[in-house]
Amino acid sequence: MLVIDGLGGLPDAKTGKTELETAHTPYLDQLAKKGICGLTDPVSPGVTPGSGPGHLALFGYDPLRFTIGRGVLEALGIGFELTKNDVAARGNFCTVDSKRLITDRRAGRITTDKCIELCTLLAQIKLQGVKTFVLPVKEHRFSLVIRGKDLHDEISDTDPQKTGVIPYQAKHTKATARHTADIINNFIKQASEILAGHHPANMIMFRGFSKLPDIPSMSEIYKLTPAAIAVYPMYKGLAKLVGMEVFSTDGSIQEELKILADCYDKHDFFYVHVKQADSAGEDGDFKRKVKVIEQVDSALPQLLNLKPEVIIVTGDHSTPALLKGHSWHPVPLLLYSQWCRPDTTQEFSESACISGGLGRIQATDIMPLAMANALKLIKFGA
Amino acid sequence: MLVIDGLGGLPDAKTGKTELETAHTPYLDQLAKKGICGLTDPVSPGVTPGSGPGHLALFGYDPLRFTIGRGVLEALGIGFELTKNDVAARGNFCTVDSKRLITDRRAGRITTDKCIELCTLLAQIKLQGVKTFVLPVKEHRFSLVIRGKDLHDEISDTDPQKTGVIPYQAKHTKATARHTADIINNFIKQASEILAGHHPANMIMFRGFSKLPDIPSMSEIYKLTPAAIAVYPMYKGLAKLVGMEVFSTDGSIQEELKILADCYDKHDFFYVHVKQADSAGEDGDFKRKVKVIEQVDSALPQLLNLKPEVIIVTGDHSTPALLKGHSWHPVPLLLYSQWCRPDTTQEFSESACISGGLGRIQATDIMPLAMANALKLIKFGA
Repeated sequence: MLVIDGLGGLPDAKTGKTELETAHTPYLDQLAKKGICGLTDPVSPGVTPGSGPGHLALFGYDPLRFTIGRGVLEALGIGFELTKNDVAARGNFCTVDSKRLITDRRAGRITTDKCIELCTLLAQIKLQGVKTFVLPVKEHRFSLVIRGKDLHDEISDTDPQKTGVIPYQAKHTKATARHTADIINNFIKQASEILAGHHPANMIMFRGFSKLPDIPSMSEIYKLTPAAIAVYPMYKGLAKLVGMEVFSTDGSIQEELKILADCYDKHDFFYVHVKQADSAGEDGDFKRKVKVIEQVDSALPQLLNLKPEVIIVTGDHSTPALLKGHSWHPVPLLLYSQWCRPDTTQEFSESACISGGLGRIQATDIMPLAMANALKLIKFGA
Repeated sequence: MLVIDGLGGLPDAKTGKTELETAHTPYLDQLAKKGICGLTDPVSPGVTPGSGPGHLALFGYDPLRFTIGRGVLEALGIGFELTKNDVAARGNFCTVDSKRLITDRRAGRITTDKCIELCTLLAQIKLQGVKTFVLPVKEHRFSLVIRGKDLHDEISDTDPQKTGVIPYQAKHTKATARHTADIINNFIKQASEILAGHHPANMIMFRGFSKLPDIPSMSEIYKLTPAAIAVYPMYKGLAKLVGMEVFSTDGSIQEELKILADCYDKHDFFYVHVKQADSAGEDGDFKRKVKVIEQVDSALPQLLNLKPEVIIVTGDHSTPALLKGHSWHPVPLLLYSQWCRPDTTQEFSESACISGGLGRIQATDIMPLAMANALKLIKFGA
């Protein structure tokens, strides 16, 4: 399963062609000819998915049933290894005035260096019975992880999402979370004392208190031994969440596919993640996104040479350069196997996928289709 | 959202073209070229929707979850303003013999004038603690509305749907509706005495006891300020049901679009309803349906000139002239916005919509897609 992050796009006004349609992709086109294509909705028509829901859907998990809290996603994003005893939250440094009223929700966007310095100070806070991790993310953003027994995440945000008010107290929304809320309020109290002299970053706010979701592993569901090859922490974190063994690299798609070849015999499912298409889309850089797709295409023979029984090429969502962000547009999907009942698709593109043999399906259908094409599913009912 | 009621059709045997395909529609075709097309199922494949479910689906409400009783629909259809304290039923005048056995379920289809006269008589019935409305509909059909506190609609039909038997008593199907059933039986007793000398309309029968459904408004769901422009009472009633402000006209599509222009700045969602296509379909008048579609097309520039961010053109169901009634066939859908990822559709027609970029979707997906294309939805998950 080759995931080109943010693959789907929108056409350039002059050429009428999307990023994928503009890119010269002879190998992908040949694969589309031999295989079967379609379009997928990661969540449902009109809904723009975040990376979490987008990937869960690709791995076959209903993203409306299995939700990942913002705190957990933030911790995964910086590569922190969450355990089942952890409650994570996204933190913001902010500015408050002498009456404790918020005047800047982002503390003037302090530098990441300053963020690291302040996190080191806050990491010294001691709380009875639990361990705390205060992890810098970027600028005013950090991640708080509290590890201990019987912690619960049914806790409301302390970030009021507006200025002119005092940050809220952490409140339990379920009785069982009362103890955890007390711990967090204790942390906030100590933090505000430590930060008092650090204007503009003289206060903190939290949102998205969450624990790792209780999610069955891919090996439980599919009886596979899945592996992930990815560069960015969040995707490695998401892969770990569903029980994949994670192979890491700092490198290019070529290096990712080299790892694939190296460990090809040890696993029967591989998720290979290419981030740069999404990054280019988010930056509004149409040409760079085209180039990333062309790089993936030219590396494809490395993958094809391994002769996988089933090949999936798709994205976790669309990221049109024109919109400079994730979008709701359905995502091109290519499936190849010996048993895939090919359609008449002649190239891998949004327009060609419209009339592809797979039609427009839910992204959660991809894994069952892949499993079927690997002849790994038995008949349902007699 | 321009709803051409009963838009979908079936091809004429000679030409092989449907009503929409036969109609000369240069503006719709141009919009289809610039936009994206598809087919929708208002309920599910094979299910022929009534006007209620068809419209609820267009407004984004699952028609299997939000059901509108026949009594409520009948009252809405004559423009009666139902409140939450009302129980409504569809009434029939019928003929009974000396043993009270039904001999004609439609009382020989009395004239509407006669119906009005008899309803005036029945309106004089006094019932303790409630107010009653007896509203003529057409021929033998009328609408009964009972208004009061603690009324319930879990009441079985009194219409046995066959002759040779005595009309049933109203029976509560839930204990809480016992009091309401007593009131209705009291009404029926008094009515039978009043009507005794009015053969053939000497008795009444009821079906579809129902209250307004508990339905969230479109402004609650979408944060829109929605408005409806329609001619016929039922559609104005349905629009009111979901919280739209209703603009009424007796006129043509041109006049409806004039109203649209007049109140364009005061609302951010408009539902414009064109009834005549459905009426022509129901009458089996293929040519007239073609003509109605052509009238809509020629008025389209009035709408386009307003430069809406998102334009939806579709129907609430199909009404093929060949079938002289609503049908299960999926409904052509056209969506245009700056961000719609156009497909290769060259014209607005059933056949072209088959290979449109939207594929075949649920009609309930239209509103989320429209909202997304207006950039009014945020990302789901991080």
